[in-house]
Amino acid sequence: MRVKIVEVAPRDGLQNEKESLDFKDKAHFIKLLVEAGHKDIEVGAFVNPEKIPQMASSGQVIGELQGIKRVNFWALVPNLKGYESATKSRVSQIAIFTAASETFNQKNINTSINGSFERFKEFVPHAKKNKIKIRGYVSTCFGCPYEGKVNPKAVLKVTERLLDMGVHEISIGDTIGVATPYQVRDLTKMLLKIMGPKKLALHFHDTRGTALANIVMGLESGLSIFDSSSGGLGGCPYAPGAAGNVSTEDLLYMLQGMGVRTGIDLNKQVAASLFIQEKLGHELSSRYLKSKY
Amino acid sequence: MRVKIVEVAPRDGLQNEKESLDFKDKAHFIKLLVEAGHKDIEVGAFVNPEKIPQMASSGQVIGELQGIKRVNFWALVPNLKGYESATKSRVSQIAIFTAASETFNQKNINTSINGSFERFKEFVPHAKKNKIKIRGYVSTCFGCPYEGKVNPKAVLKVTERLLDMGVHEISIGDTIGVATPYQVRDLTKMLLKIMGPKKLALHFHDTRGTALANIVMGLESGLSIFDSSSGGLGGCPYAPGAAGNVSTEDLLYMLQGMGVRTGIDLNKQVAASLFIQEKLGHELSSRYLKSKY
Repeated sequence: MRVKIVEVAPRDGLQNEKESLDFKDKAHFIKLLVEAGHKDIEVGAFVNPEKIPQMASSGQVIGELQGIKRVNFWALVPNLKGYESATKSRVSQIAIFTAASETFNQKNINTSINGSFERFKEFVPHAKKNKIKIRGYVSTCFGCPYEGKVNPKAVLKVTERLLDMGVHEISIGDTIGVATPYQVRDLTKMLLKIMGPKKLALHFHDTRGTALANIVMGLESGLSIFDSSSGGLGGCPYAPGAAGNVSTEDLLYMLQGMGVRTGIDLNKQVAASLFIQEKLGHELSSRYLKSKY
Repeated sequence: MRVKIVEVAPRDGLQNEKESLDFKDKAHFIKLLVEAGHKDIEVGAFVNPEKIPQMASSGQVIGELQGIKRVNFWALVPNLKGYESATKSRVSQIAIFTAASETFNQKNINTSINGSFERFKEFVPHAKKNKIKIRGYVSTCFGCPYEGKVNPKAVLKVTERLLDMGVHEISIGDTIGVATPYQVRDLTKMLLKIMGPKKLALHFHDTRGTALANIVMGLESGLSIFDSSSGGLGGCPYAPGAAGNVSTEDLLYMLQGMGVRTGIDLNKQVAASLFIQEKLGHELSSRYLKSKY
């Protein structure tokens, strides 16, 4: 069995840190991830630098990565303006994002779910014409901090709309880390009725410790694309001390033990995580990192 | 579906803390666990107080619990001397322990696996005559800190010997937290050939974050008894900062989301864990505890 891991620490992780790192440090971190064997890395976001200063240097970071071949560097793009900046930086993979919960979408990106699709229409067709790969994130697929439980049908509906737009991959996000394994199995089953498993990724946060269990259930349900973050970077700013994204080391350790191939070297992954941990100056939440070092 | 949880924090957890708590605080902690709905709690150990001072007050702790009905209070008993102390304290459930790895057994209890069975022979028949329930722990069933990987056949052999002695329940321990889900499935399958699922418990440490994933695989393999520890207490003294036993809150949260009944109230469990966290004066490793409080 083989699994594709999409490493999200340089964007989803670092975006949630108080301090903005120097773009050279970020680029060095990404190069260590490439050395470890990563082929899909989310490296930045072309968003409002006044709102999210941590991502302001994304163009410079991507500049440092020119010349690296056979790795997909993904950049988050919220609207036409972001898309224009992204294309100036010669990005060839973009990620767009919306949510399964109306309230979350409103609070997160200040528009309705419909509104987010209106924004997509302004640049997604252009991206497709230019053969830019598009990843669609659906946030709050299992629970919403404002609305509570989320109806799987809402996830299905948003996913269908993204597929209709022609996105190449969809990542189903458990933004606040509330999912449990049978919910994952049920939602996956439902989604596989409208799409193939090679387009469907799962994106878990380990807020309540269930992320790896959820991934195992995703695997057993036929999926093979999982997002993870070096060291578990990405803690929610509203819950200090809480775990963030599922940690890449924990995931690699588990998959390795299960005989599942990823193409990523665990020891080199640890080296990348220790580098970024030192730059950030605080302990990361990954269990595996603490177990050995 | 219904699962039995065996709460091990008052023994396996507190034994690994630097400080020894006052017996009244321990008893209060245990009473909070009973209030939460726990029916199986490991409350102490009758071991050498010079070697393990944290357990020296076990007799007093158990004294404080007299009068509580319909709860199994388990005490660890290593040898005849310990058994005599345990019976003086009117314990009616004891736990005995050995390992699947020779080197670990030697370092942990200073005798071979054979030697540990020689010790059992001195008191187990007497315990059975007195209708004392006996739980058998097998340590290092997936990996050993000295020998590395452990052969499942070694686990099978020790388990068979415990069954032959007539123990009522066997707990298969991943002492250093190295197990991954398919290993759990394979070992469970092997063990279920020689015993029924109602006698077989799994005991995971969350050192590398895989404990809940392993438990899900145990559940899917037909098991329904799992050990866990309030707050994830039980960190290995050799790995500061590392996670200990799988946290009872994380486990309860997951099982609740899966529709699996435990009879334990998650909020009351949290109250018990917060009490012991305050007494210990340091943050516990449970993810769930950090996610909300």
